[in-house]
Amino acid sequence: MTTPTTHPRVIWWQPGGVGLLDQTLLPHEEKEILCASLESLWEAIKSLRVRGAPAIGVSAAYGAVLAGELCSETDPARFAAKVREGCEYLATSRPTAVNLFWALDRMKRTVDRIANQPIADQRKALLAEARAIETENNAVCEQLSIFGAELLGDESRVITHCNAGGLACGNYYGTALGVMLKAAELGKKVAVYVDETRPLLQGSRLTAYELMKAGVEATLICDNMAAHVMKTKGVDAVIFGADRIAANGDAANKIGSYSLAIAAKAHGVPVYVAAPLSTVDYSIPNGDAIPIEERAAAEVSGWQDSRSAPDGVQVYNPAFDVTPAEYITAIICEKGVLYPPFEVSLSSVRPDVLG
Amino acid sequence: MTTPTTHPRVIWWQPGGVGLLDQTLLPHEEKEILCASLESLWEAIKSLRVRGAPAIGVSAAYGAVLAGELCSETDPARFAAKVREGCEYLATSRPTAVNLFWALDRMKRTVDRIANQPIADQRKALLAEARAIETENNAVCEQLSIFGAELLGDESRVITHCNAGGLACGNYYGTALGVMLKAAELGKKVAVYVDETRPLLQGSRLTAYELMKAGVEATLICDNMAAHVMKTKGVDAVIFGADRIAANGDAANKIGSYSLAIAAKAHGVPVYVAAPLSTVDYSIPNGDAIPIEERAAAEVSGWQDSRSAPDGVQVYNPAFDVTPAEYITAIICEKGVLYPPFEVSLSSVRPDVLG
Repeated sequence: MTTPTTHPRVIWWQPGGVGLLDQTLLPHEEKEILCASLESLWEAIKSLRVRGAPAIGVSAAYGAVLAGELCSETDPARFAAKVREGCEYLATSRPTAVNLFWALDRMKRTVDRIANQPIADQRKALLAEARAIETENNAVCEQLSIFGAELLGDESRVITHCNAGGLACGNYYGTALGVMLKAAELGKKVAVYVDETRPLLQGSRLTAYELMKAGVEATLICDNMAAHVMKTKGVDAVIFGADRIAANGDAANKIGSYSLAIAAKAHGVPVYVAAPLSTVDYSIPNGDAIPIEERAAAEVSGWQDSRSAPDGVQVYNPAFDVTPAEYITAIICEKGVLYPPFEVSLSSVRPDVLG
Repeated sequence: MTTPTTHPRVIWWQPGGVGLLDQTLLPHEEKEILCASLESLWEAIKSLRVRGAPAIGVSAAYGAVLAGELCSETDPARFAAKVREGCEYLATSRPTAVNLFWALDRMKRTVDRIANQPIADQRKALLAEARAIETENNAVCEQLSIFGAELLGDESRVITHCNAGGLACGNYYGTALGVMLKAAELGKKVAVYVDETRPLLQGSRLTAYELMKAGVEATLICDNMAAHVMKTKGVDAVIFGADRIAANGDAANKIGSYSLAIAAKAHGVPVYVAAPLSTVDYSIPNGDAIPIEERAAAEVSGWQDSRSAPDGVQVYNPAFDVTPAEYITAIICEKGVLYPPFEVSLSSVRPDVLG
């Protein structure tokens, strides 16, 4: 995978902690931070310094490495138990993206398998597993981007929501954005309308930033303009990522994805969900079982230090919504493009090794 | 009409100019300004210090009074011509809301009728006509609110978009909000989800403010949450105002109304457009003929002094969209509740006197 030098590094391990690009400061400041404790990593995930389902998974995996590095136990079994405890703590940072639990489960299984081996070996295995998660994730993102790029015509207008780019995945391509970047690399003319994505403006701050860096045409709109754009400008595809996909294809993604999908259906625009299979939660039959994170009122009642709403206003702030499978034209994953019925197509690509 | 003392005055005439509550400073500051020149009134309309289709109409009518007051002509015919010129200047402030042109046309016809009479009489007639426009507008808003309130059940959850309250109409009830306020006055339990309404946040700043003052339950949401609210909370009605309604019922309103109406239809939620007949433009067959104002990129790329998007980002910022008649369950006006086909029902209440 080629990462243009203009794209900043997003997540990395270094002795002493998990390095992160602080995404809350983008696009105006590219500041790297080091999470040297599990608490600071937990806070970084919770407050969206690192965000996006795959990126949360990778950073949590390195969090398990950090748990091992910080652990002063001398007994191997107690060391393994401490690492598991650290994983369980990190799992409480955010509830919706399943990649967090998936990555932490892999890390826990790693220490479980060698809980009686020397601590140095356990530490080595943890780092190897986290690196494997990262490497696999990068390859998977690029692969699904290649599959998705085939779906776009030579001239395509796309609407995307939130940020499902490299920033959301700890690499360059990302998922939904990777489809557009790969299509552009193939010489297709891609023009992207970027939903700003209230309340935290990941579209405005992150997606516009990544597309502009990549040289892909980007036009920023407010989320509520998407339907008008479809009606008056013509749109060829809606593409967004996912935080958790149920066994039937219902997909949880950033709040507003559902609204966008409804508008797309009304205009005959296909809706593609681009996500690695690590985002599929085969244990739940449909989207009703996906926990939806609710966040602080202040995210909605204003922006940064500026309060727009009256003091004391009541707010409802769900961070995600679920797009029912009936609104999804296809799911783009590293195994190919999956079509309905998703129970069948998702089942056919279910990873064999479940640990 | 009873205006609770807690509601600020919105538009008024005083010798020397048009008084306005500066709505750009709400909800945190209730500042009154005096537009003592046509240029300052033009700027106040353009920059949304006064906004909302009916309120723009009333303030423009007083603008014609101001044109007369400032005119130093001594010849009656030249005086009338100057007033007409002032009206034509004010008409260039904003393109979409038809009430602006409707009110200014009434003022021009007023001087046209008496262009040969003494200037003092012309001035008197202008003030009388502007006051008539305001008085009629207030009565019309209250009347349509009464009709609309009947549509709501004893316990109703409503979603509204932008601000179609007293602030948008220069009075207390407004249009869409008046329906909710009247229903609450009738003892119905009304709970309103308020779309914040990007980019200028009229829902957050103005509608939440008015509902809280009126003691009606208000919950602020981002525009992109409305579909999720419909799916998970249950919503009984979507009610919004209009800036221009075509003869077939297509309704232009604040950007995002169309998206909301599509989501409502997908959930079987009725969509009511509440507007006085002065908002109906019988001269255009459908919404395709409604000019859509595009506004500055900075409204979308940030909020107030804070820039969220990367510098130099391309922006598309339409201020309105058109909801096709097929998405509208009924139009609530001062003559009653109109149902499809709107060509017929709107035609049946067309004002007799057209000048």
